[in-house]
Amino acid sequence: MAKERFEKPTGTQDVLPGAVEKWQFVEGKARDLCHRFNYREIRTPVFEHTALFERGVGETTDIVEGEMYTFKDKGDRDLALRPEGTAGVVRAYVQNKLFGEPDVSKLYYIGPMFRYERPQAGRYRQFHQFGIEAFGAVDPAIDAEVVSLGYQFCKDLGLNGVRVEINSVGNAPSRAAYREKLLGFLRPMKDSLCGDCQRRMERNPLRVLDCKVDQDKFIDAPSILDSLDEECTTHFAKVREHLTAMGVDYVINTRLVRGLDYYTHTAFEYKAAGIGSIDTVGGGGRYNGLVEEIGGPDQPGIGLGIGLERILLILENQKVEMETAKPLDVYFVALGQEADLEISKQLFILRSLGLSAERDYLGRKMKAQMKSADRMSARYTAILGEDELKNGVIALKSMTTGEQRTVKLEDLGGAIV
Amino acid sequence: MAKERFEKPTGTQDVLPGAVEKWQFVEGKARDLCHRFNYREIRTPVFEHTALFERGVGETTDIVEGEMYTFKDKGDRDLALRPEGTAGVVRAYVQNKLFGEPDVSKLYYIGPMFRYERPQAGRYRQFHQFGIEAFGAVDPAIDAEVVSLGYQFCKDLGLNGVRVEINSVGNAPSRAAYREKLLGFLRPMKDSLCGDCQRRMERNPLRVLDCKVDQDKFIDAPSILDSLDEECTTHFAKVREHLTAMGVDYVINTRLVRGLDYYTHTAFEYKAAGIGSIDTVGGGGRYNGLVEEIGGPDQPGIGLGIGLERILLILENQKVEMETAKPLDVYFVALGQEADLEISKQLFILRSLGLSAERDYLGRKMKAQMKSADRMSARYTAILGEDELKNGVIALKSMTTGEQRTVKLEDLGGAIV
Repeated sequence: MAKERFEKPTGTQDVLPGAVEKWQFVEGKARDLCHRFNYREIRTPVFEHTALFERGVGETTDIVEGEMYTFKDKGDRDLALRPEGTAGVVRAYVQNKLFGEPDVSKLYYIGPMFRYERPQAGRYRQFHQFGIEAFGAVDPAIDAEVVSLGYQFCKDLGLNGVRVEINSVGNAPSRAAYREKLLGFLRPMKDSLCGDCQRRMERNPLRVLDCKVDQDKFIDAPSILDSLDEECTTHFAKVREHLTAMGVDYVINTRLVRGLDYYTHTAFEYKAAGIGSIDTVGGGGRYNGLVEEIGGPDQPGIGLGIGLERILLILENQKVEMETAKPLDVYFVALGQEADLEISKQLFILRSLGLSAERDYLGRKMKAQMKSADRMSARYTAILGEDELKNGVIALKSMTTGEQRTVKLEDLGGAIV
Repeated sequence: MAKERFEKPTGTQDVLPGAVEKWQFVEGKARDLCHRFNYREIRTPVFEHTALFERGVGETTDIVEGEMYTFKDKGDRDLALRPEGTAGVVRAYVQNKLFGEPDVSKLYYIGPMFRYERPQAGRYRQFHQFGIEAFGAVDPAIDAEVVSLGYQFCKDLGLNGVRVEINSVGNAPSRAAYREKLLGFLRPMKDSLCGDCQRRMERNPLRVLDCKVDQDKFIDAPSILDSLDEECTTHFAKVREHLTAMGVDYVINTRLVRGLDYYTHTAFEYKAAGIGSIDTVGGGGRYNGLVEEIGGPDQPGIGLGIGLERILLILENQKVEMETAKPLDVYFVALGQEADLEISKQLFILRSLGLSAERDYLGRKMKAQMKSADRMSARYTAILGEDELKNGVIALKSMTTGEQRTVKLEDLGGAIV
């Protein structure tokens, strides 16, 4: 412990310059995307009352049962660091009465989430999600919009081999009918299933279909689509028509289910070409029961969530080029004590004008300063020695062409183009 | 509790569309500013080992004594939500060995911090800070750079009446000498001071000067500047020369002190014109002892921190106009079932092209849809009825000029300029 206390907590990470630009790139793409799709940002607290997640995520889920960071504050409130983004947004939608607004509430969030899981490659205890939620509309066109937003996000990032898998989990009666059919299929093979599946089977058989271990055994499982009633079937058909009209590349995956009771109708996931396999980028679904569950009116909702650590991993695996370079406009090289104050002045002027500028703070010789300028990919170096200072000029050197010229100090900003 | 559990925790806030754009504006200004000053972002975890803050903020401070959100994780680690930004950044600088890099480490952060304080106007338990830290340089020019960055931030935001107050708290020997002089001044008036001051006096008399209650009694207090040794005096003089060269508007405030032991030399605060008073925007200082305190090498550091809630409050008080409008490019109005799918298609095409576009999802009549377009400040509405659909065209109406024309569906993107 003596050592550990000055290290980052297990399962968290420091994002340093050099890596942080990739985060900025991905987040910038998400924000621009949301503007085009007319989703607006919402920011909810990093922690909420624990009861919100018990209700909003589900008391019997792995998350709530074992992975939440819970604590009491000094007022004896039971609080938890948010393990996911939807519950807080629904809570805010209800508490701030956004359902009273005339238009559909189309919201997005980007931020840290927390789960106490075993750390492994690409999985952290503090991780980050980009998500959207749309409240108030049952129109299948908005299901398609939500699906298309995630699809376009992958495209905007430059991911290859992007495909959408969609399914319908129907409404409560359809799902109840399906549950019985599925149990009829699963029970005879119960002993051959993994421990997780055996445990989940009676409580929530739909989630068994999600099992990574036993996937191959479920190829002949009954399809939920055969259990959908007319309303559900029509809704799902409309969603597909809209997706086709948009040109979104999708396939139906009848084993794609969402295990929680309040999920309804459309469920979807994004896949991208991985290293010798297919990577899941993220997913989402419709949740028409959730707003009411959190104490709000009977308002429908649909959303998606995408893990940023995962996106960055896939971008790296696919060797996607990200435009992260932000070159420095000018690096000032001061020769001698006299030039020191003038450099501070010029630095501040250029920065006020909107240019990015840097100088040496380590009293280094010219050669070391020029190396710094190189490391920072400076477009220009501006060299000020005693002679230049006397004449009110500065030597400006283009680092791309190597060309050097002398400009008046007062013209420096204009000379950097 | 039955009700509270579906409300946001006391002292936190939801930032909703309409308000969030102001946050985006301020953060955008901070990021742009940091690029111009060549500071790069660092992201450290939201929680750290509690011991880090005990060491890095100070065990006897109000923050660590009573305001931290502490908890144990499931591995029995003592963790705390970060109450400020510097300790985590110093920890990351040390743990990631950034001190081994050839250039000065110039870092910035923006993010949530947590203190269990009594909620009041503009003060939240989850609040947000923008801060910078520069490690590795003792050159007074970098003190001036850091001071000038905060000053330029205020300018970029459009704040009025911005002024910097600076002081030097010297090095350890200078401060020890000053401590004795100050105690000689304070002891005779001890009984007339407030309770906080009486308690702080022997432990940390410099912090007594910060007292809001007793300010007026300290006008004749000895100045720390008279206790500075030659090294400190020279450093402070150089900082002021650089600030003058830059044209930064500053005054010396000898009662501006930072109470923690590792603070050295330059201390500063930003003031802006408030409502009938002066508002403190933020501040910072040099901390040459802190990196070593956190287990790193003897490397100097200097930084500043600015509360975003406070900035937003001052911007509001000063009625500063923020460029937050992001108009919608086009709102689609569909007339009849037939147009529905075509609208989805056009919507997706325009969004792929980089335009922002919206449609109705509530099956509303044309008039209600036009009202939506108005509420969203749409630049154009694009109206698709049965006739248009049959002819492969759409009616495009400019919402600024009122002019309406018919364009081919495939030319729609190009027609919106």
